[in-house]
Amino acid sequence: ARPKVGYFYSQKPTTSLIHDYIRNIKVLDIKSKPVTVSENYSVYDSIVTLFLNDVGTIFVESSGYLVGAVSRKDFLKTAIGSSDVHKVPVGVIMTRMPNIVTVKDTDTAYEAARKIIEHEVDSLPVIEVVKDELQKEHYKITGKVSKTTLTQLLVKLGESQG
Amino acid sequence: ARPKVGYFYSQKPTTSLIHDYIRNIKVLDIKSKPVTVSENYSVYDSIVTLFLNDVGTIFVESSGYLVGAVSRKDFLKTAIGSSDVHKVPVGVIMTRMPNIVTVKDTDTAYEAARKIIEHEVDSLPVIEVVKDELQKEHYKITGKVSKTTLTQLLVKLGESQG
Repeated sequence: ARPKVGYFYSQKPTTSLIHDYIRNIKVLDIKSKPVTVSENYSVYDSIVTLFLNDVGTIFVESSGYLVGAVSRKDFLKTAIGSSDVHKVPVGVIMTRMPNIVTVKDTDTAYEAARKIIEHEVDSLPVIEVVKDELQKEHYKITGKVSKTTLTQLLVKLGESQG
Repeated sequence: ARPKVGYFYSQKPTTSLIHDYIRNIKVLDIKSKPVTVSENYSVYDSIVTLFLNDVGTIFVESSGYLVGAVSRKDFLKTAIGSSDVHKVPVGVIMTRMPNIVTVKDTDTAYEAARKIIEHEVDSLPVIEVVKDELQKEHYKITGKVSKTTLTQLLVKLGESQG
């Protein structure tokens, strides 16, 4: 008996399959835990938090909502400046909402990578929009996608199977 | 006339095509320009070089050969410490050869990504091994592959075509 084999016709080159595949991976599937501090933390304590968690970006929360982001680059700039890192609160040097580039669970890994490159940032907070009793919108942070997350994804895609 | 179409048989799932594809991309095809300073540069001047070139890692050369690497994280650690960044030479705080993880032009993008994740670094120097008149091996730096390079690659792979 002839074996049942699947023949299929494809005009798509391999690269087309690749980008379909990459565009099907969702932020929800790859996001990692964000590290957050509160706005009145000193720059110094925030840097310590950065080192203790070995991350590149710290997100800043106020009343449980995302209000800012600070990268290693921002911290370095402040650290070599003249201000006292023990006295300056992180809220003073952070990038403040609405200037933070964000993604949602339903966005694709591709979209996250594109935003990181386009906006020249290291990490994006994954957010959920919630409304308070006055119908004002707030962002809750549920994760992050960083260049590290995406490099890990590339490793996973390149891993040989079994 | 019937159009010439290609039929092909494949037992491979799509993910298998993906990792074959990713493993065929070479470091040579994706590497970017490295930023280097000499060993006697001060930490401060190296940080300035880092900012002016907007990179995350500085490589250190001596007599044209790679001798060290310093990341934003290393600089931040020094900057919040008690040492005078204007006086300390970058050679004091750098990670020194042979403790630097490197790749070659012929390695794959996958291999570079794997090394970055495994060794928890942001960037790898792309090197070429050369021998001096005493047959001693030295490393010449010809480029770098960073998490940014690999995130850019992911964007390229995910881009729709035409």
